[in-house]
Amino acid sequence: MKVLVMAHAPVIALLSDFGTSDGYAGVMQGVILGIARDVPLVDLTHDIPAHDVAAGAWVLYTSWRYFPGHTVFLAVVDPGVGGARRAAAVQVESRIFVGPDNGLFSLVIAGGTVEAAVALDNPRYHLGAPSATFHGRDVFAPCAAHLAVGIPLASLGSPITPETLIRLPILQAERSGSTVRASIVHVDRFGNLITSVDSALTTLVLITASTTLHLGRHLITVRARTFAEGPTDQPFLLRDSSGHLAVAIRDGSAAAQLGAHRGDSVRVEGLPS
Amino acid sequence: MKVLVMAHAPVIALLSDFGTSDGYAGVMQGVILGIARDVPLVDLTHDIPAHDVAAGAWVLYTSWRYFPGHTVFLAVVDPGVGGARRAAAVQVESRIFVGPDNGLFSLVIAGGTVEAAVALDNPRYHLGAPSATFHGRDVFAPCAAHLAVGIPLASLGSPITPETLIRLPILQAERSGSTVRASIVHVDRFGNLITSVDSALTTLVLITASTTLHLGRHLITVRARTFAEGPTDQPFLLRDSSGHLAVAIRDGSAAAQLGAHRGDSVRVEGLPS
Amino acid sequence: MKVLVMAHAPVIALLSDFGTSDGYAGVMQGVILGIARDVPLVDLTHDIPAHDVAAGAWVLYTSWRYFPGHTVFLAVVDPGVGGARRAAAVQVESRIFVGPDNGLFSLVIAGGTVEAAVALDNPRYHLGAPSATFHGRDVFAPCAAHLAVGIPLASLGSPITPETLIRLPILQAERSGSTVRASIVHVDRFGNLITSVDSALTTLVLITASTTLHLGRHLITVRARTFAEGPTDQPFLLRDSSGHLAVAIRDGSAAAQLGAHRGDSVRVEGLPS
Repeated sequence: MKVLVMAHAPVIALLSDFGTSDGYAGVMQGVILGIARDVPLVDLTHDIPAHDVAAGAWVLYTSWRYFPGHTVFLAVVDPGVGGARRAAAVQVESRIFVGPDNGLFSLVIAGGTVEAAVALDNPRYHLGAPSATFHGRDVFAPCAAHLAVGIPLASLGSPITPETLIRLPILQAERSGSTVRASIVHVDRFGNLITSVDSALTTLVLITASTTLHLGRHLITVRARTFAEGPTDQPFLLRDSSGHLAVAIRDGSAAAQLGAHRGDSVRVEGLPS
Repeated sequence: MKVLVMAHAPVIALLSDFGTSDGYAGVMQGVILGIARDVPLVDLTHDIPAHDVAAGAWVLYTSWRYFPGHTVFLAVVDPGVGGARRAAAVQVESRIFVGPDNGLFSLVIAGGTVEAAVALDNPRYHLGAPSATFHGRDVFAPCAAHLAVGIPLASLGSPITPETLIRLPILQAERSGSTVRASIVHVDRFGNLITSVDSALTTLVLITASTTLHLGRHLITVRARTFAEGPTDQPFLLRDSSGHLAVAIRDGSAAAQLGAHRGDSVRVEGLPS
Repeated sequence: MKVLVMAHAPVIALLSDFGTSDGYAGVMQGVILGIARDVPLVDLTHDIPAHDVAAGAWVLYTSWRYFPGHTVFLAVVDPGVGGARRAAAVQVESRIFVGPDNGLFSLVIAGGTVEAAVALDNPRYHLGAPSATFHGRDVFAPCAAHLAVGIPLASLGSPITPETLIRLPILQAERSGSTVRASIVHVDRFGNLITSVDSALTTLVLITASTTLHLGRHLITVRARTFAEGPTDQPFLLRDSSGHLAVAIRDGSAAAQLGAHRGDSVRVEGLPS
């Protein structure tokens, strides 16, 4: 990247499954601004499907490196709120992730270096009497805001051994000889089907002329570099902006037209074995 | 609350029923930034159901105290725009609420101290020639922005006697002996059913072992402190993050599974009479 | 406008068809904040229907003059991403529009004076290795951010002759004698039907007592200044906040009740010929 990067001061990026109707996401921002009024806030998304930790992990995975260094991610998809799961802040390289330790950070941790992690058990940085049901407001938001104004990570609570952080097996792609067995990990707004075949393997798939992707009864062989280059009458393979292998349909929804869903299995055949 | 609160400079929080598709909410922010470029803006929500003043009142009620002092709330759910309803700015303790005087501020006013109120009839602080149909853009947004940059409330228009502000009966809960008759006032994104039984009465309901909640043909007796503690096979009572009594289903939607809607009556029985 | 306008420093307003579920809109903001941390960001909307360039053009048209001078609009509805369409930055009076040259800026250009335009072909202001499928993140966001921090428009790439910018015929309204043939160009969240009859012609329609609007089998003759003044039992004509002629139903959706959609033809009759 040749761009001028001038910003080393923090930003807070918010991700949740709160939706936007109830004011829950806005309230977290109100709490933050009471502590860190001058920190820019970005709504990464609040439309993660309710309780869908893996979906939240995917969006963090595809997003976090595009935010400036020192960004604090306030990420709350937290079906176990108030229960045994730990509340955590995890520093991965120069960014910090604040939220439940339930696997939401699985893909960030898998792709980055964990520098430190703490359990958010110092009540000094919580709202006065935290509710049992809304730690986004009462624990995570104030902790994220304090980090953004310079409170050290270690002040927020007891150290966590990074190896004990919860990791979910979200991106499975197994290569065996000339075959890769993978799955659809994300269906985006346009109906593009993004698979668990990662960037390096996608390069190999796309440069090998003989590869085919099997999705249910569909066999996809055409490939394109862009949506505009794709054929108009059949689905095609392309590299998604995440780097992963994807199935798309030009000016249409591959999900709708192929009847495909997140979690569906895909199989790539024809790789050099 | 033991957190460091450093912010006394204003913030503007926006709430409306404009949705996010038409650009109406964004335009209000454009107008604000032309007057108050350095004021942080928070979208509390723009997804209040169209024309649903009571729904907007609920979100303000559960949110406003979590925003910093001196926050200006720009709140527009305004089916009577351009008609006889007053355009108002109402100072409640250290926050100011700008929007139509149609009941939208009912619950804030009921729970806080009104310090002052004005009708927004000074055209100096409106856009040049206000439309008849979009006072959010032409009247409320510029007035909110001017308040945020320090224009005194009294400059925006004629004084309103606080007692004349419109109040809607949104949170009705009547106790009679051992029974409380109340209603569902909000159904959130997760399908939790939040009732009009307020925080003090909720404490009494939850500590009294014999209480039951009747909702249509359903009788709910189990209670939990958190979602994670709830049973997996039946609905349960818990204290919502607003403090109110709520009915929830673990990892599911109580609204969908019980066929319940906002406005449905509930009855709590078994209180000490 | 008599308001105090203090802001001449830039703001970035974002518009896209990315929706809010995938994090795509948030990632663009992350990229921007890495370059231009102190620039206020406004989400004008990310809910333009997928690939609907004309719908994006309408929202820009009704919004852009309400943003402060020097606003940079980052607008991405880009079905041809990675293909032959030009990536452009277009200065219209004091604002700059960054996005694909595919007609998205048609209505802004038609109503304003184009001062300069460039193709975004200087890789110095892109992310390192732009993807083929997400120029919003890799090209448009970094270019918008650089403009906001003061990089001159001419630095971003080769000049474009303004006359060659793509213009789509979105707002068609043909007057012939006493008749105007037009269409519905936007249906808003409330179900109001906004037509291509522009502000000047709307004035003429509304002051001429004998005019009627024909929409399919419906004939609409009543007019109102505000929603609150409209009749309760039939649709009526009013001036939308964009200035255009609209059809509304009080406390209801004209689109639903009249079975009308964007693109439907309307005919106004009875103008002085």
